[in-house]
Amino acid sequence: MSSRYDTAELNRLDKQHFTHPWTIFDVFQEQGALPISRGDGCYIEDSNGRRYLDAVGGLWCTNIGLGRSEMADAIAEQCRKLAFANPFVDMTNVPATLLAAKLAELAPGDLNHVLFSCGGSTAVDSSYRLIQFYQNCRGKHTKKHVISRKNSYHGSTYLSMSIGGKAGDHPPEFDFISDFIHHISCPNYYRAPAGMAEPEYLQFLLDELEQTILRVGPDNVAAFYAEPVLGAGGVIVPPAGYHQGTFDICRKYDVLYISDEVVTAFGRLGHWFASKDVFGIEPDMIITAKGLTSGYQPLGACIYSDRIHQVISEPGHGRCFAHGFTYSGHPVACAAALKNIEILQREQLLNRVQQLGPYFQQQMKTLEDLPIVGQVRGMQLMVCVENVRCKKTKALFPEELDIGKRIADHAETLGLIVRPIVHLNVMSPPLTISRSQIDDIVATLRKAIELTINDLYAEGHLARQSACA
Amino acid sequence: MSSRYDTAELNRLDKQHFTHPWTIFDVFQEQGALPISRGDGCYIEDSNGRRYLDAVGGLWCTNIGLGRSEMADAIAEQCRKLAFANPFVDMTNVPATLLAAKLAELAPGDLNHVLFSCGGSTAVDSSYRLIQFYQNCRGKHTKKHVISRKNSYHGSTYLSMSIGGKAGDHPPEFDFISDFIHHISCPNYYRAPAGMAEPEYLQFLLDELEQTILRVGPDNVAAFYAEPVLGAGGVIVPPAGYHQGTFDICRKYDVLYISDEVVTAFGRLGHWFASKDVFGIEPDMIITAKGLTSGYQPLGACIYSDRIHQVISEPGHGRCFAHGFTYSGHPVACAAALKNIEILQREQLLNRVQQLGPYFQQQMKTLEDLPIVGQVRGMQLMVCVENVRCKKTKALFPEELDIGKRIADHAETLGLIVRPIVHLNVMSPPLTISRSQIDDIVATLRKAIELTINDLYAEGHLARQSACA
Repeated sequence: MSSRYDTAELNRLDKQHFTHPWTIFDVFQEQGALPISRGDGCYIEDSNGRRYLDAVGGLWCTNIGLGRSEMADAIAEQCRKLAFANPFVDMTNVPATLLAAKLAELAPGDLNHVLFSCGGSTAVDSSYRLIQFYQNCRGKHTKKHVISRKNSYHGSTYLSMSIGGKAGDHPPEFDFISDFIHHISCPNYYRAPAGMAEPEYLQFLLDELEQTILRVGPDNVAAFYAEPVLGAGGVIVPPAGYHQGTFDICRKYDVLYISDEVVTAFGRLGHWFASKDVFGIEPDMIITAKGLTSGYQPLGACIYSDRIHQVISEPGHGRCFAHGFTYSGHPVACAAALKNIEILQREQLLNRVQQLGPYFQQQMKTLEDLPIVGQVRGMQLMVCVENVRCKKTKALFPEELDIGKRIADHAETLGLIVRPIVHLNVMSPPLTISRSQIDDIVATLRKAIELTINDLYAEGHLARQSACA
Repeated sequence: MSSRYDTAELNRLDKQHFTHPWTIFDVFQEQGALPISRGDGCYIEDSNGRRYLDAVGGLWCTNIGLGRSEMADAIAEQCRKLAFANPFVDMTNVPATLLAAKLAELAPGDLNHVLFSCGGSTAVDSSYRLIQFYQNCRGKHTKKHVISRKNSYHGSTYLSMSIGGKAGDHPPEFDFISDFIHHISCPNYYRAPAGMAEPEYLQFLLDELEQTILRVGPDNVAAFYAEPVLGAGGVIVPPAGYHQGTFDICRKYDVLYISDEVVTAFGRLGHWFASKDVFGIEPDMIITAKGLTSGYQPLGACIYSDRIHQVISEPGHGRCFAHGFTYSGHPVACAAALKNIEILQREQLLNRVQQLGPYFQQQMKTLEDLPIVGQVRGMQLMVCVENVRCKKTKALFPEELDIGKRIADHAETLGLIVRPIVHLNVMSPPLTISRSQIDDIVATLRKAIELTINDLYAEGHLARQSACA
């Protein structure tokens, strides 16, 4: 069966009608978007039948790989059986119930209650509405402020984008909530003040959190939002001791710890959830999405603690949790998640990540010998290449040079998809990736960076001498 | 194939782990939720194998009816072909492109651009972020305020729930944005001041909108959000002339008209969209979801005008629309929408609604002879029964009596699902409903109301005498 389409016509329709997430209008009108028409395993194929190794895993999400017949069958079977059921108030559906129970089983500690949504953004949005509800039930009406980090990403609703702290996502054309959201430093040791040792840097970060709580007031600070490893901010693994340290400070001041595991859960770091199994903490809520269905279906969840549930559901108040969505606990999406979890278990893909992840990191790390690769960092199947103009000073290229995009474009021509984020390239391949596919990624990316370096030399953006400042 | 499940076990798991939208904790812990396990056409089946005629159509959404093999096949085929593709920046996928083009074709006027989401809430949230972007691009940095109506429903993110104006959705346990959102009267003539003629009431409503714009300041008011027929607020059809009147006032003050057609589109009122074809106006944006996929997949869209697009995409600014979701334009959801639209067209379901809708309204209207039915109102396949303690004074039962729920519970026992909203019962059956199924709905609902009336007599909540006050 052919997957060829009239690419010119698709491009025309796409440009005229589909306003993509993060559309850069000038570039889009000129170049349009690459139409993807097929996908299997770690590969995707465009409308001209050209294949690419997708090192991005869709968008941190195609954990079990694309094109699984078993997923299509489970989804179709649920469509035939029950394609939709009202989840409001006094009705439920079988897959949603079973998935809620399964998530409670997989999540750490007493995280036994699930708010469903259709993705990470709405799971974060729901988590904050739950916090409001919880604090008002406790009579703590001022305790609603949020602390999060620069370079964090928490979604794209008005609220969740305001919680996020990526400067590039806060351009002047948008407005943001600022009166109850506070951004502290990104825990990125590579960008720590020159000469600061890691333990000293850790202490600076912990002090900053505590000082921020004290400045805003412990009676006002409700929650700390944190991705265990910052994803879209550039795969930033905080210094050792950071998770426990921030957790202890939150406990000291009755601040809820909200772990945003939209990226890090469902095997990306070798475990169902990273908060406890990788970083040793039991948060008050875990937000998840993406790997939950491996992207086959839109689904998100906020999994929260017994302690919170006891407060909000205390009998005798007649309280109504007036929140949720038509598609909360959508039966087809929940059936997809259950099948996805079954596949992750049966094929032992979490173990696979634990075994293959170090190889991936180690091979990627070899790119650091290239003259513009400042750092390769990451953990298991999340990795980021940070490109710099000068490795000594860590100075960046001018933003308009769009260095990450240049490298990604060369890689695409060579048959590899990597994600550009300004001066970064990030990757998060399916958990089914093989050693030889990892070797392909590393070799092709090396080639793409070399081609980019040649362009930069030719254009005079990079000096041939190793001296830089 | 049996659909029997261990209902007791499902109930136990559901209570322990699934926090439903609009959970009333006290009632939920006592009664739990009814587990639905199958659905075909206008019928759903619970985990004990009991069947119900679903007059709610899921939740205003199962427009083509449940259990369509053709939908399951299209969804499965897309899963096999391409289950996910990154929609960000410079990639697209075939079903998303084709659906964006199709929506532009079906939507009125110059509404040619689509922001995809996974439901109505995020489509509304996106629409407001688009408004911010548009106004900032135009240099109108203060023009960000929103006017909406009491009893309106616009979704459940922090922002969209704040735009909505249902008192029951704004309990004291939640907080809301109030500094830039203003609620004016619900255009419900049944609740107009006693003795006010309809034209006079219309003038009052239009004056109120204009006065609110003038009070907040035309330089500050960005948009008016309105469902053409208010859905969850109780199927309120505004007085004739209201849509054109509010539209003209918006135009006069450069206020964007945002038509929330999450419920009213895709045939519910007999047309693809109601704004123009039913009410004669061409809004600046149409929000839609629900009927877009008939609920088979989570999908929403904000369809906006060329005029807005020209401003935000003006060349030479290097602007990036830093907004959107991982699952914006999800290929499987978009493939489902395309197939759903094809079915609506092929089976001429819009015509069917135009033919059958008046019969549905007329038959439902016969319930007005019952002593507690104050009004039956609606349009085509949306209907609401408003229950009152006194038909003369229109006085309501005490809220704790939960009259709508009592009727819905009796109906459920009789094999019919109707949706209770405090003192209301609302219905929006699949567009495939037949005359005899309509007759069933009316007869069963009559019986359920009669049983409720008997209970009320027995409990002393209703006087046998026709006199009331």
